[in-house]
Formats: sequence, C-alpha cells, structure tokens
Amino acid sequence: MSMRPLHLHPDRLFPADPEVRAITRRLYDHVATLPIISPHGHTDPQWFAQNAPFANASELLLQPDHYVFRMLYSQGVPLEALGLTPVSVDAARAVDPREAWRILASHYHLFRGTPSRMWLDWVFAEGFGIDVQLTAETSDLYYDRITGALATPEFRPRALFERFNIEVITTTESPLDTLDHHRTIADSNWNGRVLTAYRPDPVVDPEYEGFRDNLARFAELTGEDTFSYAGYLAAHRKRRAFFAKHGATSTDHGHPTALTADLSRAEADALFARVIRPDVSPQDAELFRAQMLTEMAGMSVEDGLVMQIHPGALRNHNPQVFARFGRDKGADMPMRTDYVHALRPLLARHGNNPDLTIILFTLDETVYARELAPLAGHYPALKLGPAWWFHDSPEGMRRFRLSMTETAGFYNTVGFNDDTRAFLSIPARHDVARRVDCGFLATLVAEHRMEEWEAAELAHDLSYALAKKAYRL
Amino acid sequence: MSMRPLHLHPDRLFPADPEVRAITRRLYDHVATLPIISPHGHTDPQWFAQNAPFANASELLLQPDHYVFRMLYSQGVPLEALGLTPVSVDAARAVDPREAWRILASHYHLFRGTPSRMWLDWVFAEGFGIDVQLTAETSDLYYDRITGALATPEFRPRALFERFNIEVITTTESPLDTLDHHRTIADSNWNGRVLTAYRPDPVVDPEYEGFRDNLARFAELTGEDTFSYAGYLAAHRKRRAFFAKHGATSTDHGHPTALTADLSRAEADALFARVIRPDVSPQDAELFRAQMLTEMAGMSVEDGLVMQIHPGALRNHNPQVFARFGRDKGADMPMRTDYVHALRPLLARHGNNPDLTIILFTLDETVYARELAPLAGHYPALKLGPAWWFHDSPEGMRRFRLSMTETAGFYNTVGFNDDTRAFLSIPARHDVARRVDCGFLATLVAEHRMEEWEAAELAHDLSYALAKKAYRL
Amino acid sequence: MSMRPLHLHPDRLFPADPEVRAITRRLYDHVATLPIISPHGHTDPQWFAQNAPFANASELLLQPDHYVFRMLYSQGVPLEALGLTPVSVDAARAVDPREAWRILASHYHLFRGTPSRMWLDWVFAEGFGIDVQLTAETSDLYYDRITGALATPEFRPRALFERFNIEVITTTESPLDTLDHHRTIADSNWNGRVLTAYRPDPVVDPEYEGFRDNLARFAELTGEDTFSYAGYLAAHRKRRAFFAKHGATSTDHGHPTALTADLSRAEADALFARVIRPDVSPQDAELFRAQMLTEMAGMSVEDGLVMQIHPGALRNHNPQVFARFGRDKGADMPMRTDYVHALRPLLARHGNNPDLTIILFTLDETVYARELAPLAGHYPALKLGPAWWFHDSPEGMRRFRLSMTETAGFYNTVGFNDDTRAFLSIPARHDVARRVDCGFLATLVAEHRMEEWEAAELAHDLSYALAKKAYRL
Repeated sequence: MSMRPLHLHPDRLFPADPEVRAITRRLYDHVATLPIISPHGHTDPQWFAQNAPFANASELLLQPDHYVFRMLYSQGVPLEALGLTPVSVDAARAVDPREAWRILASHYHLFRGTPSRMWLDWVFAEGFGIDVQLTAETSDLYYDRITGALATPEFRPRALFERFNIEVITTTESPLDTLDHHRTIADSNWNGRVLTAYRPDPVVDPEYEGFRDNLARFAELTGEDTFSYAGYLAAHRKRRAFFAKHGATSTDHGHPTALTADLSRAEADALFARVIRPDVSPQDAELFRAQMLTEMAGMSVEDGLVMQIHPGALRNHNPQVFARFGRDKGADMPMRTDYVHALRPLLARHGNNPDLTIILFTLDETVYARELAPLAGHYPALKLGPAWWFHDSPEGMRRFRLSMTETAGFYNTVGFNDDTRAFLSIPARHDVARRVDCGFLATLVAEHRMEEWEAAELAHDLSYALAKKAYRL
Repeated sequence: MSMRPLHLHPDRLFPADPEVRAITRRLYDHVATLPIISPHGHTDPQWFAQNAPFANASELLLQPDHYVFRMLYSQGVPLEALGLTPVSVDAARAVDPREAWRILASHYHLFRGTPSRMWLDWVFAEGFGIDVQLTAETSDLYYDRITGALATPEFRPRALFERFNIEVITTTESPLDTLDHHRTIADSNWNGRVLTAYRPDPVVDPEYEGFRDNLARFAELTGEDTFSYAGYLAAHRKRRAFFAKHGATSTDHGHPTALTADLSRAEADALFARVIRPDVSPQDAELFRAQMLTEMAGMSVEDGLVMQIHPGALRNHNPQVFARFGRDKGADMPMRTDYVHALRPLLARHGNNPDLTIILFTLDETVYARELAPLAGHYPALKLGPAWWFHDSPEGMRRFRLSMTETAGFYNTVGFNDDTRAFLSIPARHDVARRVDCGFLATLVAEHRMEEWEAAELAHDLSYALAKKAYRL
Repeated sequence: MSMRPLHLHPDRLFPADPEVRAITRRLYDHVATLPIISPHGHTDPQWFAQNAPFANASELLLQPDHYVFRMLYSQGVPLEALGLTPVSVDAARAVDPREAWRILASHYHLFRGTPSRMWLDWVFAEGFGIDVQLTAETSDLYYDRITGALATPEFRPRALFERFNIEVITTTESPLDTLDHHRTIADSNWNGRVLTAYRPDPVVDPEYEGFRDNLARFAELTGEDTFSYAGYLAAHRKRRAFFAKHGATSTDHGHPTALTADLSRAEADALFARVIRPDVSPQDAELFRAQMLTEMAGMSVEDGLVMQIHPGALRNHNPQVFARFGRDKGADMPMRTDYVHALRPLLARHGNNPDLTIILFTLDETVYARELAPLAGHYPALKLGPAWWFHDSPEGMRRFRLSMTETAGFYNTVGFNDDTRAFLSIPARHDVARRVDCGFLATLVAEHRMEEWEAAELAHDLSYALAKKAYRL
C-alpha cells in the first residue's frame, strides 16, 4: 500500500445535509478560535512547573492513553509490548519505544470510527504537521518526526499551553498532595493558569488502598485528629481552604455509585468509628461514602467550591491486568447507575440552594432523559456535566444533547470537559465538542426550532461561557 | 436588544433534507386541519361548564404549567415570585401577575430547545397574534395583549374549544367526584364533547393522602360497605358505571410501578383487611395496588372501559417544595420501570382477551424496544400510549417511533395524548405530534421502506383515527 | 382498491441525503453480491439432507415465522386460524393453508415499518417474481404463485442454497442430536457447506424440560456417567469433539441471564449433586448454568470452538399460549440484562486469552455503549455479536453501530447473523444488514470521519470477512 494522505477536512463532523452544514459552518466560525476553558482533567502539574520536554512519541501519545492501549489489548496485543510498566520491577523489561510505536502504527485501522482516531489525527496533522496517514509503512517517519519535534522549545509544555490558547486548566489532586507544582507555577514568571481541584477519594473511601495510612497523613498535614469524626471533618475544611488558596474552585468525587446519606451526627460518629477499622464492611464503606457526599455538599455551601460527582465505574474489572499493571489500565467498566433515589438525601438537605453548584456526570446514558435531565431541570443546585469518558465522542455528545436538552435546557449544562491526561489532544477534544454542538444547533435552526442568532449565542455559551460560569473561573 | 420577530415557520420540525421535507409537507397537508381527538388530559371541566373568562396571562400560562415553572426554579427563581400559592395561607403573599410574567419574559432564553418554547410560541403567535419574541423588553406588551384578549368572548373556554377544532376531549376525575361539571355541560345547549375518565388512585392507593377518609366517602356515594373487599369492589363497579353513563370510555391508573398481582380471593380479602388499617406497610400497599390493576382489568372486560396505566413517577421528590407548595410542582421524577415481570400476572389472566384494551405508558424509554414493543407486539389486550410527559417532545416522539415501530408496528399504538392542563397549548401539542410523525413517515418513504400512499394513510391514522378507535370515542 | 405495484427500490434503506446516498451506493456495489456467510441460525438440516420440496406458501412463510404470527396475534387473530398446531392433538383442527394465507394478506398493512415487511417483500419480489403488493385482493394470486413455484426443482432447498450464494450455513443442534442429517449432507455428492453448532442447553439447564432424561440420553451417547460431575464434563468433551468432527466451529448458550461462576471443584461437585435431583432450586439452577458457562469457555480454550452467549430472554411469558402451542410462539420477552458483573468470574479466568473467542449477544440495548462495548474494547477473548432478534432491523442495526463503534471499534464485531428458521428470507436479511452498514459507513465518510477507501474495506469486512474469521469458517 502506498502512503495515504492525512487531511483534516474543514467540515469534519458537520452534518452532511448542505443547508445544515452551511449553518454549522457559520456557527462554528464564531467559536473555532475561542480560548479553551478546561475545568476538569488529569494533566500533570509537574509538566507546567518544570517545563521539561516530553521524551518520545510513545511515552507522550501511547503509554499514557488508556483509550489507545485498551483497544490494542482487546485485539491481542500484550500491554508489555506497548511499553506499559508492570507493577513488579522484576517483571519489567525494557521496550524500545520505537517498536511500541510500530505496533500502534500497524494496528491503526482498529481505531476507524473511534474518537481516538480523530484526536490522534488532529495531533499528527495540526500538532506535528504530518500529512500522511499512520500505517506500518509510515511508522518510523512518524516516530522520528514527533520525537524530534518534542526536543524543540516549541513543544515544551508551557509553549504548547500557549499555542493551544488555554485560558485556564484544572488538574486533580488528592488532599494529601502538597500542591508544590502549583505553587511553583504560581511563583514563576509564567502566566498560565493551572488550577487544582480537591479530589478526596483516598481519604473518603474506606476501601481505597491505604485508607488508614492516608488518614494518618491527613492528620499530619492538618494537625487534626483525623481518627475522630469531628477532627476528620475539620481536616477536610482546612485542606479545602488550602486548595482554594491555591486556586481550586471545585471538588471531585469518584464514587462507585451516586448514593448519598444524611445521617444524624450520632449515627455518623458511630459509622466513622467503624470505617476506620481495618475490617470495614462493604455496607459501611458504601454508607460512609454516601454520607461524605452530603458532608462535602455542606462544605461547598460554606466555601463556595463547585462539587463534581463522577459515579458509576466498576474499577479494575480485570484482576490479572490489575495485579500486573495496577490502576487505570483501560479495565474500568461502566455500571448501571441510579440517581433519582441515590441523590435524594443530599438534595433534600442542599438541593434547593441556588448558591450551591453540583455537577453530575454519568457513564450510564439511560439516565440522561429519565433521571438527570428531570433532576437538573428542577433542583437549583444541580447542573449536568458533559458526556463523559466512553461517551466523550461525537455520537456520545449527540446522544447527550438529544436526550438532555428538551427537559433540562442548555443552561443547566456546563460546557465541555476534556477530562484527559493526553495533553496534546486537548485542543482536538474541545474542537470535536464545538463541532458537534454547532451541528446540533444547526439542525435545530434548519428545523425552525430556533433562530440562528440564538444558536450563535448558544454556540458561544457551550464552547466557552458556561464552563467559565459554572466552575466559577 | 431590539425586538426580534416571532414567526412560526410553516416547515418547523420537518426534516432538513429537501426531498424528505417535501414528502413531509405533502403528508402534513393531509392532516394539519383534522379535528383534535384528546383522549387523555387534565383540563378542568369547570371551564367548559361555566365558560368564564381566564383571568390574566400568568394565571393562564405560567402558574399552572409545571414544565415552565420547574425550569425557572432550576435556575434559581423562587416559586413564590412566580405567584405559586404556598399550602399554608400564612405563607402566602400576593404577587402581581404582571411581575411574575416579567420573570418569565426575562428568562425566556432558558427554554431554547425545549418543547415548552414551541408550545408557548404557538400560543403567542397563533393564539394571540403576537409577532415579536418574548423578552424582558416585550414583557408588558405580551401581558397586556394576552390579558386583554382573555376578556373577550373569543377567548372564553367554549369558544376556544370550537376554534381549536376539538372533536372530543377527556378530563380525569376521581371516583369521589360527582361529575357535576360534566352534567352541566351535557345539560347545556352547547355541543362540545367533554368526557370524564375514571382515575381511582385516591381509593386504590393505600398510601394516598386521606385513603381511609376517601373510602368512607366512596361508601357514601355508592351505598356499599367499602371496608369489606366485596363491598369495595362493588363500589368500583357502581362508580365505573356512573362514569360510563357520563361519557367515560376509559380508566387511568397512576401507580409508582407497573406491578400487578393475581391473588386468590382469600388472599385478597386478607390483604384488603390489612391495607384499610392506618399502619399499612409499604409492601402491602404495593401488593394491593398490584392486585387492583388486575381487578380493574377484569372490570374492564365486563364494562368495556379502556384501561390506561401510567407508572414510573417518584412523586414529590423534593420534600421542601412539597411541604411548601404541595403536589404537582415539577418535582416528580421518573424511575427505572419494569414491565415484563410486573405485568405478567395481569396478562396471564386477561392479556389474551382481544376485547380488552390496556394502554401502557412509560417514563423509562429503555423499555420501548426491550419490553413494551415486544409485549404489545404479542398480547392482544395491549396497546402503546404515546411518548409521555418529559418525552412529549420532538426528540422524545422520534425516539418513540424509532424504538417501537419495528417490533410493535404502528397499529399497536394509539395516536397522540396531550395529557395537559395547559388548555391553550393543546393545538400546539397535537400539531407538534403531527409534524414529527409526518417527518418520521417521510423518512421511511424517502428510504423506500414504505410507499407514500401508505404513509398518507398512516399519517391520518396516527393523527386522528387510531386515538378514536383505541379509546372507543 | 386496485392492485398496487410491488417494487424493491435499488436505493432502499440508503440515507436520503443525496451525497450520503451516492457514497452508500458505491460502497454497496462492492458488497451486494458477496457470498453469504451464515454462521448462526436455525434452518433445519433435514431440508438440505433430503432436499424435499416445501409444501405451500403458509407452511413455508407464515407458520414457522414467529415475527409474523405474533404481530397478527397481537391484533386479535387466533393462532389456530393461522394453522399453528396445538400441542394437544385433541385440540387440533385442520386449517386450509390458503385460508391462513388470506388472513396474512388481509392484515399485511400491520407490518408497515417492520423488518418482516422488508424481508417478505424481498421474498415475494426477488424469490417469486411477484410484482403486486400483498393484499386481500391478491391473496390467492400469491398463494398459487408461491405454492406452484415450490413444486419446481428451482425451489428445492439445495437449489435455493446455491441460488442464494450461501458459502456456508450453520444450524444449531442439541448434544443429544445424532447429526444424521449433517452426515447425510456430507456423504452426499452435494457440496453445500451446512455445519452444526453445539447448543447444550437441554443438558446444561436444570430447568429445561426433561433435564434428567436428557442426562440419561447424554450418558447413552457418550458412555460416560453423566450423573457424576466428572463424567458429565467428560461427556461434554466427547460430544463437542463429535460435533467438531461434523464441522462445528462454535457453541451456543441461551441462558436467561449472563451470570457466570467459577466455583472450586468441590463446590461444583456438590452443586451438581443438587441440580440432578428433581427438586432443584431456582438458585441452584441459575448457579449451575453460571458455572457451566465458565466450564464451556474452558473447553473452548481446549478445542477451539467459538463460544456464543445469547442471554436475556424470558421464555414463554404467556402461559396460555405455552400450554396450547408450546415453545417459540412469539411469547418470549426480553429482560434487562447485566454483563459487567455477570461475566466477571468467567473473564477473570479466561478473558485475557487471545486464542479464545466469546461472542456476546443481547436483547437489552442499554448495555451496548455502557457494558458491551467497554468490555469488548478491553478483553481479548470478547467479540460483539450483531443486533439480535427484535433488534435485527434497520433501526436496530443503526443503534448497534452508533452505540458500539466509538468504544469497541468495528474489529471487535463479527459481521451479521441471520439467526433465522425462515430460509427464504436469508438473502433479504443479509441484504438489509449490508445496506444499513453501508449507509452507516457512508455517513462517516460524508462527515469526514473516515476516508472512502477505508469505508470500502470495512464494508467488505462487515459483510463477509469478519464473520468468516470470527467463527473460524
């Protein structure tokens, strides 16, 4: 096979109908170059603190991207061959990153029809100026071009941040994090806004690895007795304030379910005494997570941090992959998730507070029209996060808009989150969202369900303004 | 901002593709002016009995419409400010309806992309001849125009009924209702057909407010001993006959789930003895509702009333709103709902009876293709009600047709229900349904899955004939 | 009504947009005449062994097709009137097949918008050369034309097999089947490939009719002590080898749920001792089916048979129809089905094996994007079967592709299954799948999400190559 051209068509993702496409183009022209608001994600603040170059194509684009290596693994490629590092040092063997890249290149057809393909092609074409498709034949060309570029100043993290027109980006840290990198950035003469978010799962989930050790560290950092419930809550308050002082405007909660509880203080004290013991029961662990969502909402009422709830993933579904490679290796699976019953205790306590913002996410699309849109279309405290994770894709976003809009409207949504560790793909991801939203709006215009000037206002809101407002950025 | 024109485009809601749109237009032309069959809804029979004028814009269009005020509430507008009346008189304070209207006007952009926007714009443009969009600037113009029109004879309920070309409309009453308004209408020299439907929830659901008092009143009205099961069932039979005599052709059942049961007479007697006690358990309450669905189906076999089942709403999800404002304030939330297991006892008893009609509704769209279409595509007694409540919307209707048709066909569906208390929006709602159905049919024609003459027959059936036939009107 | 022409439009099922349609046409031209790979279905091997003529139109097209008679039944047509045979001979009465056909003809409008209509019209037009629509008026014309043709050599089973360009077809047999028909075919001078598949439900499901008798027969056929767990497993191994020797490349498992288990040998021995008793509990029956899925996967690792899991049908929902007519009479209903939790024991044991292929099917579309695509996009052993049964329809296939592709890609899917006993409809069903897949791919091309040459490769893979590879044919 000869080399195939790689070309990002200017109309990509726009609906095919000529009239709808023409409207989409006009709407997209308004928003294509707006700054990026990235209010939730997993980039590493160290990149921006140290501004060191990325090492090579595989280390940048393949090994950290669970979307990419899970697809290769599903078709029989061992994770070791891609250079993923086993947990046990004994098991580690060096993999030539160029060879790992060749595996990606020769399997690149597997990504046809997936968002990974769209994101990667954008990185290749827009990021590195490559104009042929990735195949076995072009693998070395790609590897050399990308790895070579990464050694240049233009591809240092801060330079990319500026080139990508990022107005603000938020990372995610544990309460046990000292936020040194964020402080380094703030103290530097660089003006990039890199904020943190408070993700307390390691000290909130009694089933988290090292929970009791985490509580001990939590005590050290705060000077509170974190093995009493009062001290534990006080530690959260202190740490939230510390995060807010370093720019945080939000918290994030990655629970298996959306269950909430509103226990009496005596019940909560007794529960806490049980969950700090090593033999915590699954029921108590779940109830404690539930109680803590309501406690965290209460603290958000006090300190103004926006609360994000990301439930519904069964983590580490594959015990062999977990034992060998650890967390976040593409083996988390979505589960059916209830919100209407689960959130009721929290909402009964705080849901009518218009000064509180709780942003809900889901991996279970069946709740879009049935539960999330009706809830967010009523409770002043609730907003809807964008299509998440497996649903962060053109069809996923379309289903989100088609299912949510009629009951929740646009203004109970909060714009786009890239939610990624794949830094170079951030502009591509925001661009996909803008294109899909403009196409959705254009269809409403073409069907005379909205005027084009209204769609233009909304395109701006969905691409930029709503995220900034909802996350208080 | 200057005043924006308000214009209902004749092609609104038609698919954008020119060929599909042209077919849609032709189909729609056949059905646009057909009379309205409104076989299920919540208009107030007093309107048509007394034919008094509506008071003002807010009282007509804002305060009774939970779709509208729930959206405003979700964005921080207090319900009091909209003029909703608190349950406690002490808490009430007068709200100027013109001020309430101004709040709606200044927040009208929240409704972009929602069916409320389409319905209201129709009412404004077609109902009142207004030709500028509703905004803060045009609020008073709207308020005065609408309120002024309502004082004229053309806007009295009966005149609107005739202008809207309503062939028949069905209201919904409790067995405890004396149907005085329906009798007044029947005894008047006005020919409008306003029927009732038998909605026995207040005497069927042991958890309904005042259940025991309701049973006492049920006894007074029927002369039966409604605290024995035999007398209780006899009272239903008498009351159903009374409703049928006043024009009812249907019953309606608003249970939390679709559970049915088919107990032995001894079991049912014992259950009844338990549920009439003040300390009824939730399990017994649920089982009694389940048993009563099967009993009601049996009575429908006897008396020919069409049975409607509307399950799946968790009522009064928000305790603060319920305590302050009571029922039906936009705080009911859909729940996951099972039909395949739940309906089995009833269907085993009555499902094979082709003379019985049970119309199923759902708030859980996941059951469309998985449960409802397979059930209705097999059992002679079952038919499928239209997309309901939160799903009574263009996309909701499209999902309904796309998910149901291939397994259940069109002829196991029953046309459109407006299910509304918002009288002025009834033509708009039927028009939306006709437009969406014609667009769906046109797509089948354009994809050569159906001939256009077949689609024209179906457009008539879906817009008019199926509702009339299924509801025996 | 005069006679309406019957015409299969060459663009049927292609998207309406002219550009997308043009791309679809080009893609479809590549695959329209590819041979049929039918790797899973329920045709009767006796047809191909004996090559006897089919009797008449009703016996061929109406009485065996549960899609058809369930729709007629749902609209009040008694199954007896269609010639379905009651279980009890006493209840049987002869039905003139011409009269049964007339009922279908006069109700044919019920199938508007259904896949049955598309399949039947193909059979009428392409199979029998009829050029008028089926109506009450044309019923006898149809009956005579079809019944007459069936008496000719061109309509014998083997001639149709060749005319339909079937490269290979797989039937489904119980382990208790002696495969005589398959042996007859193999020993004949006819070269048609008609393979079997191992469907062990009658000896795996303790709730199957005659389970203990089946085990006794299983012992006779294998010489193993099938009432000990060791002997029982050995019997499976022998029988699988026997099936493989007769061409089987796959097994099939029709469990109510997807539950799997991985018991210790001692636990499994004890469980087996309980399930072979007549008083087996539902819990033990379910656990045994669960354990057997994992055992079967282990045997597939040994012998290379591809494993198919078809869960989620509540069989025989209608007790009256079951009592009168037995199984498979259109009264099976889909149920909500979990995979993420249910499959975990099996996947923990065998899911990382790239030499194992397990093909998952579902009747619960909510799991497409939430569970099946994430699972198949990670586990090397998993592949996704096509849209199944009620979802084997144009819209069902579109939902499948739209929901699955972005997370699982195309290469974790396995092409099309017709899964039918309606032999004459097989080409129509494959043609529908090819048309819908080409339309889906064309939309991706038109939205510049894929190059047209890639779509052409994929069209070939989805229509032909993937099924052949996944089923090892």
